[in-house]
Amino acid sequence: MIIVVKSTAPRQEVEKLKDMLQKRGMEINYSEGVDHIVMGLIGDTRSIDVDSLASIEIVEKVLRVQEPYKKANRSFHPEDSRFDIGGGLIGGGAFAVMAGPCSVESEEQVLEVAKRVKKSGATFLRGGAFKPRTSPYSFQGMGLDGLELLLLAKAETGLPIVSEIMSTEYLDEFVEKVDIIQVGARNMQNFAMLTELGKCNKPILLKRGMCATIEEWLMSAEYIMKEGNEEVILCERGIRTFETFTRNTLDLSAIPAIKKKSHLPIVVDPSHSTGMWWMVESMAKAAVAAGADGLMIEVHNAPEAALCDGAQSLKPDKFDQLMDTLEKYTQLEGKVLR
Amino acid sequence: MIIVVKSTAPRQEVEKLKDMLQKRGMEINYSEGVDHIVMGLIGDTRSIDVDSLASIEIVEKVLRVQEPYKKANRSFHPEDSRFDIGGGLIGGGAFAVMAGPCSVESEEQVLEVAKRVKKSGATFLRGGAFKPRTSPYSFQGMGLDGLELLLLAKAETGLPIVSEIMSTEYLDEFVEKVDIIQVGARNMQNFAMLTELGKCNKPILLKRGMCATIEEWLMSAEYIMKEGNEEVILCERGIRTFETFTRNTLDLSAIPAIKKKSHLPIVVDPSHSTGMWWMVESMAKAAVAAGADGLMIEVHNAPEAALCDGAQSLKPDKFDQLMDTLEKYTQLEGKVLR
Amino acid sequence: MIIVVKSTAPRQEVEKLKDMLQKRGMEINYSEGVDHIVMGLIGDTRSIDVDSLASIEIVEKVLRVQEPYKKANRSFHPEDSRFDIGGGLIGGGAFAVMAGPCSVESEEQVLEVAKRVKKSGATFLRGGAFKPRTSPYSFQGMGLDGLELLLLAKAETGLPIVSEIMSTEYLDEFVEKVDIIQVGARNMQNFAMLTELGKCNKPILLKRGMCATIEEWLMSAEYIMKEGNEEVILCERGIRTFETFTRNTLDLSAIPAIKKKSHLPIVVDPSHSTGMWWMVESMAKAAVAAGADGLMIEVHNAPEAALCDGAQSLKPDKFDQLMDTLEKYTQLEGKVLR
Amino acid sequence: MIIVVKSTAPRQEVEKLKDMLQKRGMEINYSEGVDHIVMGLIGDTRSIDVDSLASIEIVEKVLRVQEPYKKANRSFHPEDSRFDIGGGLIGGGAFAVMAGPCSVESEEQVLEVAKRVKKSGATFLRGGAFKPRTSPYSFQGMGLDGLELLLLAKAETGLPIVSEIMSTEYLDEFVEKVDIIQVGARNMQNFAMLTELGKCNKPILLKRGMCATIEEWLMSAEYIMKEGNEEVILCERGIRTFETFTRNTLDLSAIPAIKKKSHLPIVVDPSHSTGMWWMVESMAKAAVAAGADGLMIEVHNAPEAALCDGAQSLKPDKFDQLMDTLEKYTQLEGKVLR
Repeated sequence: MIIVVKSTAPRQEVEKLKDMLQKRGMEINYSEGVDHIVMGLIGDTRSIDVDSLASIEIVEKVLRVQEPYKKANRSFHPEDSRFDIGGGLIGGGAFAVMAGPCSVESEEQVLEVAKRVKKSGATFLRGGAFKPRTSPYSFQGMGLDGLELLLLAKAETGLPIVSEIMSTEYLDEFVEKVDIIQVGARNMQNFAMLTELGKCNKPILLKRGMCATIEEWLMSAEYIMKEGNEEVILCERGIRTFETFTRNTLDLSAIPAIKKKSHLPIVVDPSHSTGMWWMVESMAKAAVAAGADGLMIEVHNAPEAALCDGAQSLKPDKFDQLMDTLEKYTQLEGKVLR
Repeated sequence: MIIVVKSTAPRQEVEKLKDMLQKRGMEINYSEGVDHIVMGLIGDTRSIDVDSLASIEIVEKVLRVQEPYKKANRSFHPEDSRFDIGGGLIGGGAFAVMAGPCSVESEEQVLEVAKRVKKSGATFLRGGAFKPRTSPYSFQGMGLDGLELLLLAKAETGLPIVSEIMSTEYLDEFVEKVDIIQVGARNMQNFAMLTELGKCNKPILLKRGMCATIEEWLMSAEYIMKEGNEEVILCERGIRTFETFTRNTLDLSAIPAIKKKSHLPIVVDPSHSTGMWWMVESMAKAAVAAGADGLMIEVHNAPEAALCDGAQSLKPDKFDQLMDTLEKYTQLEGKVLR
Repeated sequence: MIIVVKSTAPRQEVEKLKDMLQKRGMEINYSEGVDHIVMGLIGDTRSIDVDSLASIEIVEKVLRVQEPYKKANRSFHPEDSRFDIGGGLIGGGAFAVMAGPCSVESEEQVLEVAKRVKKSGATFLRGGAFKPRTSPYSFQGMGLDGLELLLLAKAETGLPIVSEIMSTEYLDEFVEKVDIIQVGARNMQNFAMLTELGKCNKPILLKRGMCATIEEWLMSAEYIMKEGNEEVILCERGIRTFETFTRNTLDLSAIPAIKKKSHLPIVVDPSHSTGMWWMVESMAKAAVAAGADGLMIEVHNAPEAALCDGAQSLKPDKFDQLMDTLEKYTQLEGKVLR
Repeated sequence: MIIVVKSTAPRQEVEKLKDMLQKRGMEINYSEGVDHIVMGLIGDTRSIDVDSLASIEIVEKVLRVQEPYKKANRSFHPEDSRFDIGGGLIGGGAFAVMAGPCSVESEEQVLEVAKRVKKSGATFLRGGAFKPRTSPYSFQGMGLDGLELLLLAKAETGLPIVSEIMSTEYLDEFVEKVDIIQVGARNMQNFAMLTELGKCNKPILLKRGMCATIEEWLMSAEYIMKEGNEEVILCERGIRTFETFTRNTLDLSAIPAIKKKSHLPIVVDPSHSTGMWWMVESMAKAAVAAGADGLMIEVHNAPEAALCDGAQSLKPDKFDQLMDTLEKYTQLEGKVLR
């Protein structure tokens, strides 16, 4: 951490600051220029609050040099993480495709979609049992019954299940029944829940918050990993910007950014980010080319009758063609799709 | 709700759409133009999913006319809501000032700050016991012990308490001990928690999410109100934009917007939004002038030693001066400050 | 400027960097820590390109400490700037109100509006002769004829004129005819035009770009001032964010920010920023309370028939009431309104 | 265009509105529901101002159905546009690569870079002679001398030239000397300049403004095309968001959006958008996979000594490898790279 102090600051204030820092166990590299005094702190600065330092009147700027995340940091874990989840592989060259309906609606629906996506080569079945809806008057998902239907579909197809958790109330059921617990964008900074998820031993798929920076996202992964659960998969699903044509703006540059900073796998959700089924193919291909480790794609047998988010769902035939196309791109990237 | 269909759409697809809508209980006002067919839906469209409609191939646009919130809507509740909370009034002409430290750190600190802000005219004591921190390595708050210290301060000063809840785990303790339960920006769309809070009978202070639209914010209030708890106070605390000079961008135009659309009181937090103590005064005055029903302001007796967010805290003397200044502005607005 | 280099960098690369910087006339304060080498540059770093430095492989971070603007910087000009423009004062305690139609449409319209706003106490007449319109098919303004009509209104009322320039083609006419040349948000970084405007001796009203940071805005003022024209008035008119309820998000925290960093006067345009006439009053009051030096307000005698931007225009009666209200707020701020 | 009126509106106000619309040549499809009256306008609504309509007190919402652009609209020009520019092809299956230094700095530099990128397969030489810089104290480009150096490089390599224009002052020189005139992001809504460019017969490369919506971008293309110049190439170069890790956020979903709405070719600039050379490869591949018609890439023989934007420039060797990689991706897309 680097602290810049105005050179006009009273000597005694500068000494007070140095004392305070040394008491917190920091060693100080002190250098004085014409306009500014620069103090470089040596030691573990992760617990030092940048804002509190910045509030000191003589302090002009505080610059954090060290990254604030440790377990998620590639520096301390240079090779890519790779997880084997119920037979489905992700990371380190294995490309995962998580496909299925936005929300589980009926046995017939989930079984049909599951069989179709399995046949097309999906490696995980996604499906929402608990749905985060902006309106309390919208369909909220089938709840625990939805999880049971996903288990039926798993029994039928062998596909491991990904499903979103919305509170820790049903954490035991999730740990027992699903293969990957998904944390939605709106809960990315539900720190109490992240801490609980860090204590269970199930892989977590952590969606990026709608207005979360890449660093904040990694810090949320760190919340989980700090508690001992190191199987975290990141999922880019679009950020909120001024553009209204697309529902959100898919930030594919997050992929090389995450790859540089972290060893965790990253998947992309082209369905939610764009909000339009006809954009899914081009964004899915682009995600592969940008270096993603997987995709999460909505597939519905009757999008126009879907109880939520129909606009972004592919029909099974379209998904089947997409998988054929994607295979060519994953091959170029040296990754194994199915 | 208005549905625009291309006039080139096959007749039979148009009929299918009309049938489907009628089966859902909608009456249709149908009019055909040269380029477009326009269908106006009559009935309660709150449960109809705009996205699913938009996914139908012949549909070009869907426009929601009716606002999706009901209990929070001024149309159904024309007069301002006013709450009497442990002797502190808010709304309908009563101006509330919630002041105190970002986080409760010690008995000495919270008692001193409480006495000082009480003397200056604050009407509520704010203080964080559970702190949402971006980093798991930062100070996470004193937890339940913090609530006890707030109760001591309340006993001493008579000020009702506002404190943030981070999960429903300690909901009973919050209901028992605090006067207003605060929901932080990061949990604004933690729908499971909102639903639980809707079932308790404590006023809720609902902070706007960092990237939440005004409509989404009102929908989150609706989640609480739908369950029966109608004492919701909205709190504007800045939205995330491209600007990096301020921590967030305080959106004061949210005040007249909320006043037009809803009857709920709205307070403003100039401390968190700007992140700099020297901006608090001008933004606090501006909030009053824009029509806010109250302010939430951080006051710390030693900001430079604060365990979090020192940069944005006022010292008690500065807060005292601010209160004198604010009184002139609340008078102009015809509101009672203290 | 502070350069952070990884301590693992090859010695000879570090020496090369030091040499290069010294050749550019910089003195270096060099300090070496465990993880990082920190170099503090002493000298005028304004011409050093941060990006080029950052591209050097061994460089980890570059932090600019010195502000990149000089003439607009309050450090070099501690007292507020105050301009006397054709009898209208602005800055240093004088509060300016620039009122009038979005665009000049006819002699009758501009004369009527001018007389009405003069009577209500406006100190400048605003009116667009050249209009920046998103669509080439929309009304583009009356052009030079519009300037003539503004001159008629000035002759009648004595109000100095503010009007927007859209290219340097008619710069001579603007210099001759208007009292303040307005640069619109879309041209805030039209650097070629800013440079030309810096060479004329007319006050410039520089609107903030829709996605311009406060620093970029001041740098655009610097473009003008560098050429010799130091009469620059800044105008906050809303920034583009994800919120769609308002047309733009008025950033009133820009006022204290500008006041801290610069000596230039700042006015606020509540009409364009919100896009809705019924928000103008609350945002105008808030702007005064936040410390603005003036307001720019759209007034139209028949908003519903306006050729552009009717939705945000006040009728003259409403403007008259607003001026009475504003006077109480400017008094509190110790400023003179009329 | 659809106008929604509250059904509580006074009859005579509704009649007035209908009259006014009919006088402007609109035919009205009128339908009355319980809560709302819906009027569908038939006719050319491009000149009707949505804001003015919205300002009418009885009007609740105005929805534009027809797209406001005509010449840029795919509906009126279903097949992809393809331009042959000095031997370089772009659009309709021809993939263009515009490579070269951010700014022209010397004969030696531009010749070396030009020869290298030509050898690697670039189809256009890009190079800035006039540079839009945030700071007036930064290097502003070599100006007309820079254009001469580009011509030397063209003579040597045969590569057609792309260079940015910053004002119409040197329009004649640009028309004479360059092959594609580039409009930078900051001038995307410099409407006076767009109109002038529409009158010359040189292809225009129109960069997307940092906070321009896709519709506004197409409207700026329309400004050029309306005047007769229909050779417009769109260039996505990142939009401004809250994320600070990357300089801007590259919006690759703009590619399928533009492809759906317009027939114009779209290229992507991965260098400026990310601001970091090590992100260029992954974003370039992703752009191809998303359906782009070309790329604009910065190449510098000594990025660390560049006078601007070194951080984002590739060295020639790296560019050479990139071209080999890209060829595999353009083949998959059925496009011809070189």
